[in-house]
Amino acid sequence: MYRNKTKLRVRYGETDKMGYVYHGNYAQYFEIGREEAMRNLGSDYAALEKNGILMPVISLWTKFFAPAYYDQVLTVETVINTFPNIRMKFDYNIYNASEVLVASGQTTLVFVDEAKRKPVKPPEWFLDLLRPYFK
Amino acid sequence: MYRNKTKLRVRYGETDKMGYVYHGNYAQYFEIGREEAMRNLGSDYAALEKNGILMPVISLWTKFFAPAYYDQVLTVETVINTFPNIRMKFDYNIYNASEVLVASGQTTLVFVDEAKRKPVKPPEWFLDLLRPYFK
Amino acid sequence: MYRNKTKLRVRYGETDKMGYVYHGNYAQYFEIGREEAMRNLGSDYAALEKNGILMPVISLWTKFFAPAYYDQVLTVETVINTFPNIRMKFDYNIYNASEVLVASGQTTLVFVDEAKRKPVKPPEWFLDLLRPYFK
Amino acid sequence: MYRNKTKLRVRYGETDKMGYVYHGNYAQYFEIGREEAMRNLGSDYAALEKNGILMPVISLWTKFFAPAYYDQVLTVETVINTFPNIRMKFDYNIYNASEVLVASGQTTLVFVDEAKRKPVKPPEWFLDLLRPYFK
Repeated sequence: MYRNKTKLRVRYGETDKMGYVYHGNYAQYFEIGREEAMRNLGSDYAALEKNGILMPVISLWTKFFAPAYYDQVLTVETVINTFPNIRMKFDYNIYNASEVLVASGQTTLVFVDEAKRKPVKPPEWFLDLLRPYFK
Repeated sequence: MYRNKTKLRVRYGETDKMGYVYHGNYAQYFEIGREEAMRNLGSDYAALEKNGILMPVISLWTKFFAPAYYDQVLTVETVINTFPNIRMKFDYNIYNASEVLVASGQTTLVFVDEAKRKPVKPPEWFLDLLRPYFK
Repeated sequence: MYRNKTKLRVRYGETDKMGYVYHGNYAQYFEIGREEAMRNLGSDYAALEKNGILMPVISLWTKFFAPAYYDQVLTVETVINTFPNIRMKFDYNIYNASEVLVASGQTTLVFVDEAKRKPVKPPEWFLDLLRPYFK
Repeated sequence: MYRNKTKLRVRYGETDKMGYVYHGNYAQYFEIGREEAMRNLGSDYAALEKNGILMPVISLWTKFFAPAYYDQVLTVETVINTFPNIRMKFDYNIYNASEVLVASGQTTLVFVDEAKRKPVKPPEWFLDLLRPYFK
């Protein structure tokens, strides 16, 4: 199991007329969490792309527990619970500065060969970064 | 059960560097489907807001089956399978022009009193619009 | 001079906490106007891309005269005042249903060879579509 | 004259199918620069809102000089050249990590009384924060 935390500040343009962060924008917050998690592992998504691997999202779910507001600093906790194969799952919890759980979510991504646009196994160097956390 | 279909055209700004519609943008496509469904019922979300009712989304899930591309005309099918109480569920299927299923999803919304920001039952006039479809 | 009008409905996710359409979203409204203008000319931006031509935006200005609100149907008027060379200018006026001018803007785009990522002259078949309007 | 620099990382969802940051997203980058500038001055936009002042954008222009790419860390330089009255101008330059100028822009905002939705003079405590830079 691998866990990482990162922070972000809510942008004005991310709110909607209710005064809350628009629910559709959490997909970007999860993406930020996922990418910081990978960066801290020693690789990142950009490195995979340079190696001809894309990672489209094939499922997304989110539960919204409390509103988030403009200018709040949110903490995105990203957890990799399962060692990836062709697919890779990420779980997320987003907290506000009072440690209230704002939203939880999960995304499943698939490794895709960019040239063939077909699913592939992730490269060994990428799996090697994760192995220490899944003994 | 109530079903409605509406069409939308993919915007350039909705694509990402993979050349696909960015997965986070489907939340807006579902919203368009949901609002057209309500408009065709004889009310709409704006009418609820004028009556002091907000409808924040409390859960969202999406499965992505095939990429959608810039300039494609997509059909959003929106289905209300369950008569609403304090919560209201919407199911969605998005098809491209070749009738390929691009994505499916579900959102649950909650009726909220705008002034008190507390959950409330939906107004009777709104439920009356739905009753003919749930006999 | 070539002029085209198209309509769009403001999405919930396009508003911000002031209750107005977020100013950054007008770039997408202009894009919709520009693409409908080109489509009505007999070509469209997607057709240029299929011919290996990209059209990145190199300048954008917008003046905001009145707020636009959720669920409003806006009319985007797009005007091509100048016959294009390597660059192409579009002017925009956005009106609400009461014919109040909401925003005006201008974008300049440049024709770019996709493979070389260098500016190029637009293809003759594209210019031919515009010629009747610039006699 | 007051000048501030802040950094941001390009999100995947901010790119478009050309592989560049979608031009419409620079409005959010400018907003980040503007807000960090105000925060470093000792106030911020959220503080103004708590005092019943909104600041809608009434004009925006942007020139795009070079593409920005996914995962790049960009520096947003924000400059206040003119002491504000009812309106406040911000100038921006965005640089990539190689110090290439990616985009420049300017926004004009107007101070608005939230309750009356009418233009107002900015509060004295806000102007006091700026005075040391405009002697």
